[in-house]
Amino acid sequence: MSGAPGFDQHPSETLRAGKGFSLADVDPDSTPGFKGTKEDGQALLAELDDGLAELQEKLFAESRFGGRKRILLILQAMDTAGKGGIVNHVMAAMDPQGVQFKAFKAPTDEEKSYDFLWRIEKEVPAAGMVGVFDRSHYEDVLIHRVHRWASPEEIKRRYVAINEFEARLSGSGTTVVKVMLHISGDEQKERLLARLDNPAKHWKYSRGDLDERAFWEDYMSAYQAAIDETNTANAPWHVVPANKKWFARIAVQQLLLGALNGMDLQWPRAEFDVALERELVVRS
Amino acid sequence: MSGAPGFDQHPSETLRAGKGFSLADVDPDSTPGFKGTKEDGQALLAELDDGLAELQEKLFAESRFGGRKRILLILQAMDTAGKGGIVNHVMAAMDPQGVQFKAFKAPTDEEKSYDFLWRIEKEVPAAGMVGVFDRSHYEDVLIHRVHRWASPEEIKRRYVAINEFEARLSGSGTTVVKVMLHISGDEQKERLLARLDNPAKHWKYSRGDLDERAFWEDYMSAYQAAIDETNTANAPWHVVPANKKWFARIAVQQLLLGALNGMDLQWPRAEFDVALERELVVRS
Repeated sequence: MSGAPGFDQHPSETLRAGKGFSLADVDPDSTPGFKGTKEDGQALLAELDDGLAELQEKLFAESRFGGRKRILLILQAMDTAGKGGIVNHVMAAMDPQGVQFKAFKAPTDEEKSYDFLWRIEKEVPAAGMVGVFDRSHYEDVLIHRVHRWASPEEIKRRYVAINEFEARLSGSGTTVVKVMLHISGDEQKERLLARLDNPAKHWKYSRGDLDERAFWEDYMSAYQAAIDETNTANAPWHVVPANKKWFARIAVQQLLLGALNGMDLQWPRAEFDVALERELVVRS
Repeated sequence: MSGAPGFDQHPSETLRAGKGFSLADVDPDSTPGFKGTKEDGQALLAELDDGLAELQEKLFAESRFGGRKRILLILQAMDTAGKGGIVNHVMAAMDPQGVQFKAFKAPTDEEKSYDFLWRIEKEVPAAGMVGVFDRSHYEDVLIHRVHRWASPEEIKRRYVAINEFEARLSGSGTTVVKVMLHISGDEQKERLLARLDNPAKHWKYSRGDLDERAFWEDYMSAYQAAIDETNTANAPWHVVPANKKWFARIAVQQLLLGALNGMDLQWPRAEFDVALERELVVRS
């Protein structure tokens, strides 16, 4: 039993970057642990929405009574890999009041004048929330490494700083779920062409995407290095094959369900006399 | 034709507080302009989700290319009236990346040390966003009036300040949609009892709800006064009968659809040569 319906092994195990992890060995077309079809996957996603919503409400409810637990989902990926789709299709099941979403763009001049974690720290999720980072502090060891905007020594310093930062998050009640959505270069090409072929998607296209595409192998090396250096016990990496959007979505949903189920969430117990309050309401 | 399927008059007309509006004359059980059943209403809500999502994406897309338009939905209501359900069931259709949600609780000491609009101003939606206020600056002319936390002169000053504030929002590209969800006292009693009868809902109950309930008529007077004083052309009030949750949801969905449809949103036109980019991607 995997504990995940439809999966013969739980994605939190199969997709977790273990010892000796090699990104080059992950097939972006694969669907590890899942034997069903696309239709099965889509049905599963919808089916588990209510359970995900209930767990999130419990997390939120606990925080109203002093609970400190929270989740931070960090999404990293090459352009077009489907981060937006994850947010739109997986997170949308949750109550928007309990989701704290932040997309990190190129830093502003003010942000650049501080340490790279300054702008990140301000966006960490509050107690009871499910935080979602669309890109994150990992950009500072990915694009910065690829384009040599920082020296190798500085990149090394950042890996250490990231591990310390994430350990602090974990120590203060945050379950950190780190996800790389992994697509192939060919799949990205198809998706860029699809954007260009649909006028309603032109706004999502920029020449910059194509420029970065030329550095594909450098990015893969940077991801491999980042995963090697920051794959800690408290904040492990998961690499989700994402050529099949439907699989990436059920996989991330499972990672969230796994994280929430691991938090031992309970509905807060009434601190009032239920029978008395009932009587007062009836008489009101 | 109302322009709203299922409705013989558009909710933006039937629910709008017009001249001589009287809250006492609004039946919280009614479903103005809608002839269908609950099932029809629920089907309609689901059916229009995609259209709502597309309009919201257009609004967001425009802002990436300099568009200044945005929406601010202000939700006010007595406890248990269903603000949370609106957020969860109507807003959830939209991409969480384009929704800026803020619940205003009792002000902190810092917030209290400023003018009442200080904390509000900080949360107004960015360009391209759909902002949602769960409670708002109207608390400062509602609960403050009911409990006489402010003098009648101060409350009058606030009405004027609110009108000026909302005129500024409107002048800078914000379509302001103000909604009072209107339930009856009996309906609130049922909903409070339902919370007490479900241990998973105990966290939502507090004695304070019951305390405020005792001031029901004063609240209705305060709402009537607030609507009278702040029902401007650019930021009109809508009073949504909310004893039937399904109706309140389709009504607010229609108000949002009406607002978005009134904004003349267009997909941004490509500022690049599509054929050339296509060729470059193919060759990449």
